[in-house]
Amino acid sequence: MISVGIVGATGYAGMELLRVLHGHPEVSVVALTSRRETGTRVDAVFPHLRKFSDLTFAAPEDDRLQDCDAVFFTTPHGVAMRAAPALLHLGVRVIDLSADFRLRDPELYRRWYGQEHACPEILSEAVYGLPEMNRSAIRGARVVGNPGCYPTSVQLGLLPLLEAGFVGKGQIIADCKSGASGAGRETNVGLLLCEAGDNVKGYKVAGHRHSAEMEQGLGLTTDGSVGLTFVPHLVPMIRGIHATLYVPLASQGEDLQALFEHRYSHERFVDVLPEGSHPETRSVRGTNFCRIAVHRPGNGSMAVILAVIDNLVKGAAGQAVQCLNLMFGLDEGCGLMAAPFWP
Amino acid sequence: MISVGIVGATGYAGMELLRVLHGHPEVSVVALTSRRETGTRVDAVFPHLRKFSDLTFAAPEDDRLQDCDAVFFTTPHGVAMRAAPALLHLGVRVIDLSADFRLRDPELYRRWYGQEHACPEILSEAVYGLPEMNRSAIRGARVVGNPGCYPTSVQLGLLPLLEAGFVGKGQIIADCKSGASGAGRETNVGLLLCEAGDNVKGYKVAGHRHSAEMEQGLGLTTDGSVGLTFVPHLVPMIRGIHATLYVPLASQGEDLQALFEHRYSHERFVDVLPEGSHPETRSVRGTNFCRIAVHRPGNGSMAVILAVIDNLVKGAAGQAVQCLNLMFGLDEGCGLMAAPFWP
Amino acid sequence: MISVGIVGATGYAGMELLRVLHGHPEVSVVALTSRRETGTRVDAVFPHLRKFSDLTFAAPEDDRLQDCDAVFFTTPHGVAMRAAPALLHLGVRVIDLSADFRLRDPELYRRWYGQEHACPEILSEAVYGLPEMNRSAIRGARVVGNPGCYPTSVQLGLLPLLEAGFVGKGQIIADCKSGASGAGRETNVGLLLCEAGDNVKGYKVAGHRHSAEMEQGLGLTTDGSVGLTFVPHLVPMIRGIHATLYVPLASQGEDLQALFEHRYSHERFVDVLPEGSHPETRSVRGTNFCRIAVHRPGNGSMAVILAVIDNLVKGAAGQAVQCLNLMFGLDEGCGLMAAPFWP
Amino acid sequence: MISVGIVGATGYAGMELLRVLHGHPEVSVVALTSRRETGTRVDAVFPHLRKFSDLTFAAPEDDRLQDCDAVFFTTPHGVAMRAAPALLHLGVRVIDLSADFRLRDPELYRRWYGQEHACPEILSEAVYGLPEMNRSAIRGARVVGNPGCYPTSVQLGLLPLLEAGFVGKGQIIADCKSGASGAGRETNVGLLLCEAGDNVKGYKVAGHRHSAEMEQGLGLTTDGSVGLTFVPHLVPMIRGIHATLYVPLASQGEDLQALFEHRYSHERFVDVLPEGSHPETRSVRGTNFCRIAVHRPGNGSMAVILAVIDNLVKGAAGQAVQCLNLMFGLDEGCGLMAAPFWP
Repeated sequence: MISVGIVGATGYAGMELLRVLHGHPEVSVVALTSRRETGTRVDAVFPHLRKFSDLTFAAPEDDRLQDCDAVFFTTPHGVAMRAAPALLHLGVRVIDLSADFRLRDPELYRRWYGQEHACPEILSEAVYGLPEMNRSAIRGARVVGNPGCYPTSVQLGLLPLLEAGFVGKGQIIADCKSGASGAGRETNVGLLLCEAGDNVKGYKVAGHRHSAEMEQGLGLTTDGSVGLTFVPHLVPMIRGIHATLYVPLASQGEDLQALFEHRYSHERFVDVLPEGSHPETRSVRGTNFCRIAVHRPGNGSMAVILAVIDNLVKGAAGQAVQCLNLMFGLDEGCGLMAAPFWP
Repeated sequence: MISVGIVGATGYAGMELLRVLHGHPEVSVVALTSRRETGTRVDAVFPHLRKFSDLTFAAPEDDRLQDCDAVFFTTPHGVAMRAAPALLHLGVRVIDLSADFRLRDPELYRRWYGQEHACPEILSEAVYGLPEMNRSAIRGARVVGNPGCYPTSVQLGLLPLLEAGFVGKGQIIADCKSGASGAGRETNVGLLLCEAGDNVKGYKVAGHRHSAEMEQGLGLTTDGSVGLTFVPHLVPMIRGIHATLYVPLASQGEDLQALFEHRYSHERFVDVLPEGSHPETRSVRGTNFCRIAVHRPGNGSMAVILAVIDNLVKGAAGQAVQCLNLMFGLDEGCGLMAAPFWP
Repeated sequence: MISVGIVGATGYAGMELLRVLHGHPEVSVVALTSRRETGTRVDAVFPHLRKFSDLTFAAPEDDRLQDCDAVFFTTPHGVAMRAAPALLHLGVRVIDLSADFRLRDPELYRRWYGQEHACPEILSEAVYGLPEMNRSAIRGARVVGNPGCYPTSVQLGLLPLLEAGFVGKGQIIADCKSGASGAGRETNVGLLLCEAGDNVKGYKVAGHRHSAEMEQGLGLTTDGSVGLTFVPHLVPMIRGIHATLYVPLASQGEDLQALFEHRYSHERFVDVLPEGSHPETRSVRGTNFCRIAVHRPGNGSMAVILAVIDNLVKGAAGQAVQCLNLMFGLDEGCGLMAAPFWP
Repeated sequence: MISVGIVGATGYAGMELLRVLHGHPEVSVVALTSRRETGTRVDAVFPHLRKFSDLTFAAPEDDRLQDCDAVFFTTPHGVAMRAAPALLHLGVRVIDLSADFRLRDPELYRRWYGQEHACPEILSEAVYGLPEMNRSAIRGARVVGNPGCYPTSVQLGLLPLLEAGFVGKGQIIADCKSGASGAGRETNVGLLLCEAGDNVKGYKVAGHRHSAEMEQGLGLTTDGSVGLTFVPHLVPMIRGIHATLYVPLASQGEDLQALFEHRYSHERFVDVLPEGSHPETRSVRGTNFCRIAVHRPGNGSMAVILAVIDNLVKGAAGQAVQCLNLMFGLDEGCGLMAAPFWP
């Protein structure tokens, strides 16, 4: 039995991690921390967990974290990089769901997150936790930077085309639609049912932190021949991301459907739909799956890739558990195979 | 391994049964039938099941049903009572999620469902599948009439008061709010997102079929001293029922909180919340739980009981699996212990 | 042209008042105040008003309020009662959408709102602004206490029965379902799309401030023979209240449909639906209407009245304008006759 | 007073037309037709119109249409082109909200709508009813083809760039998110609250009829140097379209904000937001406005234009009334200036 802790477990990603791990046969959650809720039972704060968990929130500096095999961070940016070195020193492995270990370049981190990176030496050994790209490195990692939700959907939709060299000159467009849980459990007036409900809006068109992560992961450079324009939108949905990707093609003769099917044929959590399909976010809700459809309208020079994930599972907690499974030699799908709801 | 079949598996209850059984370690679904979809793979009709099921819909008269240990019916009323006798004759047990085996009195069935009961002799041995009321009878049953969604929430909220004799003269009020999935996968203009969304309405105030079931289960008689007024409402939610029950009390000195806690202390799927609580439908979504709060405003003569369930789980598929577990000697919670989502 | 001001115009009721008054041919809004937004153009804070308003928020103590014919307060409780005396002294009439002038008894105010009433002498002349009950008093009022949203729906649904003496002994039940805008523009985690969306919950079952207002308006006494149990629920809707009222009847022979139709035959904003109807909240969205259906299930001893309003219009801003029209001798429906949306 | 008729008034566009015209001081609706509802009062079918309309649905061939000054068609494709010639012959002007008079080329009509055009000679005089592009032609038109909802949002967002010659080589991307009312009042399982709710999906990526209309309006040719890739998405919203437009620029030095502000400075219904803005669909709900924000992320070679409309108003009924106003010499905004709701 692998014992794990969760630091900052009162947000949506932390709750989701608790849900996923509750169904994991090889993992036991032994410590949950929250500064605000220290000393309170988790099911007093979250009554949906009554009869499912009898844990009590501990203080973030709680000793029990040191006895864990692994610790997840579902904290705001800046927390994990300060706490990780001590845990690693004790042999505890770290899976960070914040952005602290995603960007390899500390300078890039400083620019987007407004603070110096606290442990650049550890950053340099951190592994970016997208198994479909980095599986073997994750297996041996001490520290994993779990990908952001938007970058997960965008990278899984673009990787086959980029790896195959099928992308032509010009801008790739990533137009993403996200449910409100992606913004976290924040008391922001724009996230109220009365404001986010029955409404659509784009945001951060001028620049979103996740762009840097996507460009790094995809090997793109902003000054290079292939660029990426990423525009996120908030839609009145609770969970889910729908990424619509527009990719200029280098040539027109390629069989894109076959390319995607082949690339992901051995991937447990990536499902390439039959030609002509349109994936729905509901079809992956609560699961670790990414479903992808491949289009080329009018047999033209533009591919349109549709990719859907649950932002809290494949875009956060589920992917973190997938990484944990890899790091500890378990079956990669362990604890992650519950079927989605309909409706 | 218990092998089961599902007749009429293209509706919401059928899909939910498939989801729940996918996570059940002791059950294998070997036959799914649908007249409309005969010959089609289930994951072609329901892409959310891609990578989860490779079953193909068979015709309703398919032989494989006869080889099952148990068959679930998630069909419109009138189908199960015609098909059940032959299956029972072959030793197959039947769990019917329609209304065919809920009302003990065939005359009542005729009045509410507009047709003669096709097998009154089997009806007389059928067991009403509410484990919290009928556990031992379910264990030995060949045919189970799985309760309706509204009656499940209302009966669990009222049983302790009625059993204890705490209910005074007058009308009990059951004001229920249901998500749209309770109406099934029907192409009814009133169930469109544009009409049911951002809208609330009552319906069937003059009389709803589930009243008869509630009155039977609660031992009420319409001409007796205790009556029941049931008003269902459609709210813009996908899953969930919130029952608000107003109960005139016979006396004021009783400790209702203690009564409920004691009555349900050994029940796995009924959770009595602490005093002063207000359960949310989200807290049971996707689970087989019923969460209940007990109030007596102003220490007056009226109890107000709040009970929430997921209409497709405890109100349909989950409860059916709970019955199956009892019928086959399995742990009652087997396959039913996944934690709920938040959010 | 009547010139009006709005104090505290940054909440939902204030915004709605601005919307309604924009379409009013006899009223001009000359002052909007907000402490937080002083000096900012209203359409900078609320871009939906671009091209509709070029007003700028003034400080709450702004002189322009003194030159108004009437001032609306859409402030938290406690503000209007402190500001009203000075305005009234200058001949400005006051319509308060908060609770400061609703409860005639200052002691009741203290008990429910946790503070002493600041101007009991003015309270004693204030008129409760429900035109269907108090029309002539409103015409001559200097100060109007605009009814709460729940009390508006509940009183309009109960008045005919109470006035006719048709209510029997026992408890009247008011089970109300409200959209989230009723809670205001509050950054409360429970009002987030992710928490209030796709979810139903009751709240304040032990006691809600609006009970006192309903009991006062209906002439009920908590110790009398007729009591009221009021339970509010939050449903995933933006605007609207659906009140389901259960009323024990004194006798069974009465024609309730005729009673309601007669009582409201001259009311512009109350619509009694044909027998057997079920009103939908959408049918009154954005309008000042209350639509009512009258039922007596099974011809029994319990009436079930369904009443729907838009909580921000008939339950707040629209009713306030209806009162203004009466106070200034305008046609009662002036500015209030825009048709509702569908869908 | 201008007298008008509406043919096929039982859908969402027809209902919306009735709502908008109810507030129009110069127009009287004298005939509503519906084959299915002939002889029924409109407020019996649509109770939200009780107290607002006492019209009765007539048969489509009703004589009263011939006495109208103008007739609107809110019918499925193929109806208006069959009925228009007779009405025009009698001097009745026609505003068609279906696609029958949108595409100038009858061959294009045949290809996308699967039938021969019934009156190509009338088609040749029909005017495309986008006032911001065709104002003077609309003034003199006998027949107006009212634009589709998607094409309205996309063309208003692109026109300034195309007219100014700022568009570079490559594909323009129009990624559009629409509420469910755009699909009409169809009993389609995919439009149920349970399926379209809390869900996002793209559709018709391979080709949507509105593409042809956009290309025609924008003067694009599919084989030319500038192409258009249009992908519509269904989001869980009732009304509203959010168009996100990605436009490759010919050069980088241009002041796009100034361009848009200048182009639309005299347009009543187009609102160019300040730099850095993100329009929300709610901000135009129920209004005839299009709000637009202009971005160039990273001062790069790609413009990102965000445009929002209410698909049933500026995208259908409101625009049709705007055309009517122009055709009959009324103020262009007559009946169209009600303020939007918030929330």
